[in-house]
Amino acid sequence: MTDLDFMARAIELAKKGRLKVQPNPMVGCVIVKNKKIIGEGWHHEYGKDHAEINAIKNCKKKYGVKKAFQLLAGSSVYVNLEPCSIEKNTPPCSNALIEYQIKRLFCGTLDPNPKINGRGIKLLKKAGIKTSVGLLKEECKELNRIFFTNQKKFRPYIILKSAQSLDGKIALQSGESNWITSLESRKNSHHIRSRVKGILIGRATAEQDNPSLSVRLTRNDLGLSVGETIIQPAKIILGSLKKSKKVSNIFSKNAKIIIASSQQVKKSKNVEYLEYKKKNFLEDFLKDLLDRNISSILVEGGQKTLNTFIVNNLFDELVLYTAPIFLGKGSTDALKVNAPDAIKNSMKLKMVKLERFKDDIKTTYYNENL
Amino acid sequence: MTDLDFMARAIELAKKGRLKVQPNPMVGCVIVKNKKIIGEGWHHEYGKDHAEINAIKNCKKKYGVKKAFQLLAGSSVYVNLEPCSIEKNTPPCSNALIEYQIKRLFCGTLDPNPKINGRGIKLLKKAGIKTSVGLLKEECKELNRIFFTNQKKFRPYIILKSAQSLDGKIALQSGESNWITSLESRKNSHHIRSRVKGILIGRATAEQDNPSLSVRLTRNDLGLSVGETIIQPAKIILGSLKKSKKVSNIFSKNAKIIIASSQQVKKSKNVEYLEYKKKNFLEDFLKDLLDRNISSILVEGGQKTLNTFIVNNLFDELVLYTAPIFLGKGSTDALKVNAPDAIKNSMKLKMVKLERFKDDIKTTYYNENL
Repeated sequence: MTDLDFMARAIELAKKGRLKVQPNPMVGCVIVKNKKIIGEGWHHEYGKDHAEINAIKNCKKKYGVKKAFQLLAGSSVYVNLEPCSIEKNTPPCSNALIEYQIKRLFCGTLDPNPKINGRGIKLLKKAGIKTSVGLLKEECKELNRIFFTNQKKFRPYIILKSAQSLDGKIALQSGESNWITSLESRKNSHHIRSRVKGILIGRATAEQDNPSLSVRLTRNDLGLSVGETIIQPAKIILGSLKKSKKVSNIFSKNAKIIIASSQQVKKSKNVEYLEYKKKNFLEDFLKDLLDRNISSILVEGGQKTLNTFIVNNLFDELVLYTAPIFLGKGSTDALKVNAPDAIKNSMKLKMVKLERFKDDIKTTYYNENL
Repeated sequence: MTDLDFMARAIELAKKGRLKVQPNPMVGCVIVKNKKIIGEGWHHEYGKDHAEINAIKNCKKKYGVKKAFQLLAGSSVYVNLEPCSIEKNTPPCSNALIEYQIKRLFCGTLDPNPKINGRGIKLLKKAGIKTSVGLLKEECKELNRIFFTNQKKFRPYIILKSAQSLDGKIALQSGESNWITSLESRKNSHHIRSRVKGILIGRATAEQDNPSLSVRLTRNDLGLSVGETIIQPAKIILGSLKKSKKVSNIFSKNAKIIIASSQQVKKSKNVEYLEYKKKNFLEDFLKDLLDRNISSILVEGGQKTLNTFIVNNLFDELVLYTAPIFLGKGSTDALKVNAPDAIKNSMKLKMVKLERFKDDIKTTYYNENL
């Protein structure tokens, strides 16, 4: 196995934390001595041990504490993200690596967090550890697209999702929109829900559809073990929604509820109300969400809400499910932004993924490279 | 090798004729004796020998005439389409199979041509040849989707093509439409052109864009040998287009030009003018095209023309190239048909192919199963 293989393994391990680590990044760590893996681990859950610590623990478990000490001294560590240098919920990992006298560190990328960015590496270098940054850099950045966006843009990672007909419509004039896409597409969209910390819709859509906004998948679907909890994302409503029978599903108590508005609304229990001035509403609100550890949101509609995010260039990813049907003239357009003056000046996304669910297609676009 | 393998090989051979056999079907033929292929062939070009005859010739070439006679007697023949029983440009293949005393015939499907449909098989059976119809039936039908459509619907196979933005637009309000999609997508669309007998556009698009409507690919791109001709599809204009500088590319002489209209137009040389009454215009015109051996057409726009074909349910395939850009409000919609009264009553296509060209996607839909 080469350095690349060990880093690829670290990335693979990191992904095991995908449903539980946010707002932390996914991190995996592989410790190697004489070209053999002697310990590996990953960050399991927000607030719990980091990947490096888990890999050291894994080594101790495999070889016993005494032998592990001997093995770790002089070993090489592969980790997708720079080891932390500050104490937050857990002691900094850099210290542990120094303490166990590792010899060499390969990390995929620096930590974009301005409080760390390079400081972890500096600390290790100072302690005589040889460090290399940049192995599988692009893969490591892609892995933590959410975390990098949080750190660089000071807002949640924003995914816009729409389910549309072949002619780009999301509802008939009557408002009918259930269902445009296939059961398979809809099930897949619950996987996106499972990876975000909040699902956001506009008030009008809330009142029209009374959606549950929950992850409706089994542990098996999500690759979770028996007994593991399915974490439900927060339900976030944009606009002054009042509690009523009409929106009973939203106000069911399976997840945190957040209502953000520029108007005062009648408060109800178990709901968090956020009020902002109209000016900079979205920016203020998004910064606030991140402060509440909501590091990623899925915006599911309606048209007005989706397009508000597009027009303000406040999105990182666009997911379109397209069904092979025609909804025709007069139906509601999925995307309705202002026209550019010339084609070459139009907003251009990057296509990253193409999937098929029965007769539907799913296309995933990034708005910008990190 | 099994019967399935031999039929699969026949289909593979048939495809070699894809650029030159229309309005004939693609046909491949494999002759087997003692589980060994002793001859194979395909229909190369409209008006030339059929696959069965070419397979017999191939056998003679490989083994010499005398030995071939011995081998062919008692052999099994695999062919994707029923051998013909009528003389048109070439003597009927059924006769040859009888003459050479083959023992067994496997064919994928019956010939949908009402003049043949089962008559070839009947002839062979009568001569004591054991026949099986239906091996790889779906694949054989799919292979000759164009031919089956011609025979069943008495009109050309119709492919609608559009190049659109992510929000389903084909041009800005200014009319600007060059280019929405990538060079790679546009190159791919020339491959579709190479497989049809005619490219159709509306008069307005002709005057707006002055397109060449030609296959701009190299022999190499098309898998042709040095010296083989690249066949240019006919240029078909819907509406009373007059020859002028504005449309000079269309009137260049590299292909047949057909102008179909319900109005009288000033005639010019080298152009075929078709006139129809407004009532049943499309039906009469399409039947006429097929009578002229134009067995497949690619409709490339504009919006009005494309949607006329959709609304009249006169299409077999829809190909959409979608670029990751937004053209916004006020730009021209690619697809603009009437809305259904309910989602369940909307026109529904079948998704058959999903491809990617750089950041563009290409989706291919069938309107109906054959």
